[in-house]
Amino acid sequence: MTHTNGFLYPRTQSGASSLIPSPPWFYSGDLLTVEYRTDPAKVKALLPAPLELAPEDPGAVALIWADWQSCSTDRHELLDPVLSQYKETFAVVRCSFQGVTYSRCVFIWVDKDFAIGRGLHQGYPKKLGSMWQTRPHPFAQAAPQIAPGGVFGATLAAADRRLAEAVVTLREESDTNGFVNGHPMAHHRVFPDIAGRGDAYAELISSGAKSFSGGQAWSGDADLRLFESPSEELASLSVDEVIGGYFRQVGVEWDGGTTLAHLSEAGL
Amino acid sequence: MTHTNGFLYPRTQSGASSLIPSPPWFYSGDLLTVEYRTDPAKVKALLPAPLELAPEDPGAVALIWADWQSCSTDRHELLDPVLSQYKETFAVVRCSFQGVTYSRCVFIWVDKDFAIGRGLHQGYPKKLGSMWQTRPHPFAQAAPQIAPGGVFGATLAAADRRLAEAVVTLREESDTNGFVNGHPMAHHRVFPDIAGRGDAYAELISSGAKSFSGGQAWSGDADLRLFESPSEELASLSVDEVIGGYFRQVGVEWDGGTTLAHLSEAGL
Amino acid sequence: MTHTNGFLYPRTQSGASSLIPSPPWFYSGDLLTVEYRTDPAKVKALLPAPLELAPEDPGAVALIWADWQSCSTDRHELLDPVLSQYKETFAVVRCSFQGVTYSRCVFIWVDKDFAIGRGLHQGYPKKLGSMWQTRPHPFAQAAPQIAPGGVFGATLAAADRRLAEAVVTLREESDTNGFVNGHPMAHHRVFPDIAGRGDAYAELISSGAKSFSGGQAWSGDADLRLFESPSEELASLSVDEVIGGYFRQVGVEWDGGTTLAHLSEAGL
Amino acid sequence: MTHTNGFLYPRTQSGASSLIPSPPWFYSGDLLTVEYRTDPAKVKALLPAPLELAPEDPGAVALIWADWQSCSTDRHELLDPVLSQYKETFAVVRCSFQGVTYSRCVFIWVDKDFAIGRGLHQGYPKKLGSMWQTRPHPFAQAAPQIAPGGVFGATLAAADRRLAEAVVTLREESDTNGFVNGHPMAHHRVFPDIAGRGDAYAELISSGAKSFSGGQAWSGDADLRLFESPSEELASLSVDEVIGGYFRQVGVEWDGGTTLAHLSEAGL
Repeated sequence: MTHTNGFLYPRTQSGASSLIPSPPWFYSGDLLTVEYRTDPAKVKALLPAPLELAPEDPGAVALIWADWQSCSTDRHELLDPVLSQYKETFAVVRCSFQGVTYSRCVFIWVDKDFAIGRGLHQGYPKKLGSMWQTRPHPFAQAAPQIAPGGVFGATLAAADRRLAEAVVTLREESDTNGFVNGHPMAHHRVFPDIAGRGDAYAELISSGAKSFSGGQAWSGDADLRLFESPSEELASLSVDEVIGGYFRQVGVEWDGGTTLAHLSEAGL
Repeated sequence: MTHTNGFLYPRTQSGASSLIPSPPWFYSGDLLTVEYRTDPAKVKALLPAPLELAPEDPGAVALIWADWQSCSTDRHELLDPVLSQYKETFAVVRCSFQGVTYSRCVFIWVDKDFAIGRGLHQGYPKKLGSMWQTRPHPFAQAAPQIAPGGVFGATLAAADRRLAEAVVTLREESDTNGFVNGHPMAHHRVFPDIAGRGDAYAELISSGAKSFSGGQAWSGDADLRLFESPSEELASLSVDEVIGGYFRQVGVEWDGGTTLAHLSEAGL
Repeated sequence: MTHTNGFLYPRTQSGASSLIPSPPWFYSGDLLTVEYRTDPAKVKALLPAPLELAPEDPGAVALIWADWQSCSTDRHELLDPVLSQYKETFAVVRCSFQGVTYSRCVFIWVDKDFAIGRGLHQGYPKKLGSMWQTRPHPFAQAAPQIAPGGVFGATLAAADRRLAEAVVTLREESDTNGFVNGHPMAHHRVFPDIAGRGDAYAELISSGAKSFSGGQAWSGDADLRLFESPSEELASLSVDEVIGGYFRQVGVEWDGGTTLAHLSEAGL
Repeated sequence: MTHTNGFLYPRTQSGASSLIPSPPWFYSGDLLTVEYRTDPAKVKALLPAPLELAPEDPGAVALIWADWQSCSTDRHELLDPVLSQYKETFAVVRCSFQGVTYSRCVFIWVDKDFAIGRGLHQGYPKKLGSMWQTRPHPFAQAAPQIAPGGVFGATLAAADRRLAEAVVTLREESDTNGFVNGHPMAHHRVFPDIAGRGDAYAELISSGAKSFSGGQAWSGDADLRLFESPSEELASLSVDEVIGGYFRQVGVEWDGGTTLAHLSEAGL
């Protein structure tokens, strides 16, 4: 009988056409972040059992735009960059499980299929969207500088509706680019049963970067607007108070995670 | 604790933003099919254990373009058709499991994220692509008729490379629009382990239409060309002999399937 | 010296890569129309000299979604349908020039570059957008029928913002699919001067279909919502009173127009 | 009567929705260039009268990938970057007119409508395409550095066919990023007659950057492959000998050009 290879699908003898390669996965990119506070009850509504609200600042949310280049170990994607570059926007909250505080991505949109595939594996609930963030550039004719006064815009749309708009004005160097996305991630991974009886497989996993490099972080003023859509729920995390805006360039390696809990369907 | 809803992800209290709604799913669309024979060894290479080659005409392949409108039970997607319309191209072979012949989709490309989500559930190995097929129209100024001599073109691209081109010229009414895609589907559903130890979940499932309506099928001449790509393997199913081309308009309801076998990771 | 060919650009010896081929151009497609009345002053604001408001019902507007297949004389585009199929949404008003009533497209969005090129020639002010309209289909699983009670949705977005949403419910057969788009078109064609001194070329032209075939038109109820965008002005034609919704399948041949007036830059 | 504003179209009283704003236009971006030699007869075939081959190295071609951010004077596009960022790939040759050597863009593909609009004005023969070029990034996890050994890939597709692939490996600092695109541009601007009698307007114009800032240029090895397409003619400029590969970050201001010659239709 045939033995097939490939990390996800389609699986073939060579494994060459799998939607995603085997980890580790490598990323270089720019992060534009707006952190704000919403009603903690709105965060709690997005934390299925067995998760609870984080003990401190439980209503804190980070909405993050990321402009990525990514690759696998042999870096072949970098020479055919349609397979390497993608953008994403994601909302992160914090939660608690067995006394430990985790970050958790509750909504995320990307613009490539391989990014959807990686999210499927990592528990990021990825849908397609269209997202744009101003890029810094050494020449200022049509670009901000990574410096005081640098102004960056960012937008998100899905299903032909605009969901979010942000403007961040850099003010000063910062120790961090926010705190909400600073913990290991706690994500549900779910696979519905083919016969319709709940989930065939469900677990709570944790993962984070295997290694991380970050440039100087910058903080500044931020303006953020969220818009309603019948097919999206980002606006349910309404903006009560902006904490701040951040910009940082980073390099990341990701290489798997660990199962925190196997979940019965009823628990979800 | 919070109980969340939603068929796939993201799961929320309302479930309104799940990438895909709960089945049943409904489809209306046009199918353009080219059937051909390749070396059965090339089909066998795409049939992981416990599948075997079909006993009759084991090298038969169907490459199918479909132009779909789809919706869930409440049909709300039809009023916001960015959520309803999608196109796909897929390669189907036949296989045998425990003495029964099944159809099996070995490669498939779609152009919407909800279609990827449905494929994840159904075991279709979906990636994003760009596919086009000539549409029939009552007015012939720029359209073929569903009639003898009607000529339909179709193309498929992924990752900015063209993968397939077909031309089908209708000749006569036909009892079927091919035989390769005529059995229940036997698909692997796989979910890699977060820690990298093979699959956390893997099964062989079977599913098919709960109900099906089909218009008059047409058969005719077909020309098909497949092109190499380093990130795709459709061309591995090289065209030895064209069987025929087909056109048919159909309506389908899909409402789940059944598990045929739970699979150990080693078996994949 | 070299003589180059090609209707628009790039011009080469073969002319094979011109963005658009020479007319005549042929179209088969489905039109979904909502007609309504706005304040005539809002129409007048979009009628540059030498145009004036139409004498009757001067505030009437048609917002039309069209799902097209198109080709040139040799019909080669139909076999490579990425070059043939496109969608568009356009707003039409009426106007008067030298005592004759014309239709005039004041805003239009399309989803292909060749459609932009044709609009440049015909005076349609085309930008890229994303537009969707429900398709009828013989099988009702996920499609309306062209019949009483058939419900069609339509949406338009540009620059990642939704600009318009419509729902049309067919009620009965109709003599027409509206009256606003029923006259020859009067369009400005403008080409700004490379040195920045107004227009290098500007004219008012008229054109219409060289031949037209239309199926049975249907009329019905319509709901229409327009949304603001900083980069678009469709919402300036605010909806005061809906006249009706329409559906019709048509076939069209277009083969050029005539100059009505050469315009000085000051007149624009 | 109404006076409308807007640089191109649609023209309205505010001018806010014009596809492109009035110049000057500002650009910040990264250029990846491959220069090579083809048979000069193939260049000559793309130089309509009154242009002639450049006297020196007449078969030299530059194929350039550019990753741009752009804006108008008020820089509003930078805060809504879907209106600001675009990519392009273009082929440049040199030519001679009245004893002066010019650069000339003979083929170009972009990925935004506003870029098509600007090309219409500047005489760049722009079509839509999909182009990707590897980005440098301060963190090397998934990015080359702008340094010896930095490897950059680039691809171009149009109409779902791949047209070009390049790989450039940086070797050393360079005085220039090539010589083919180093002259003022000589472009035809053509506007076909609405009645089909040749061009209503045609001229040869010249334009170049009003101001230019460039970072350190790098040169290196380059590999370039061009692919045939029935709807494109880039491959007609076949690669006989690669001259070199280049990378440079630049900032540019463009503010119009001058007419070199008014052209009769017969002369084109």
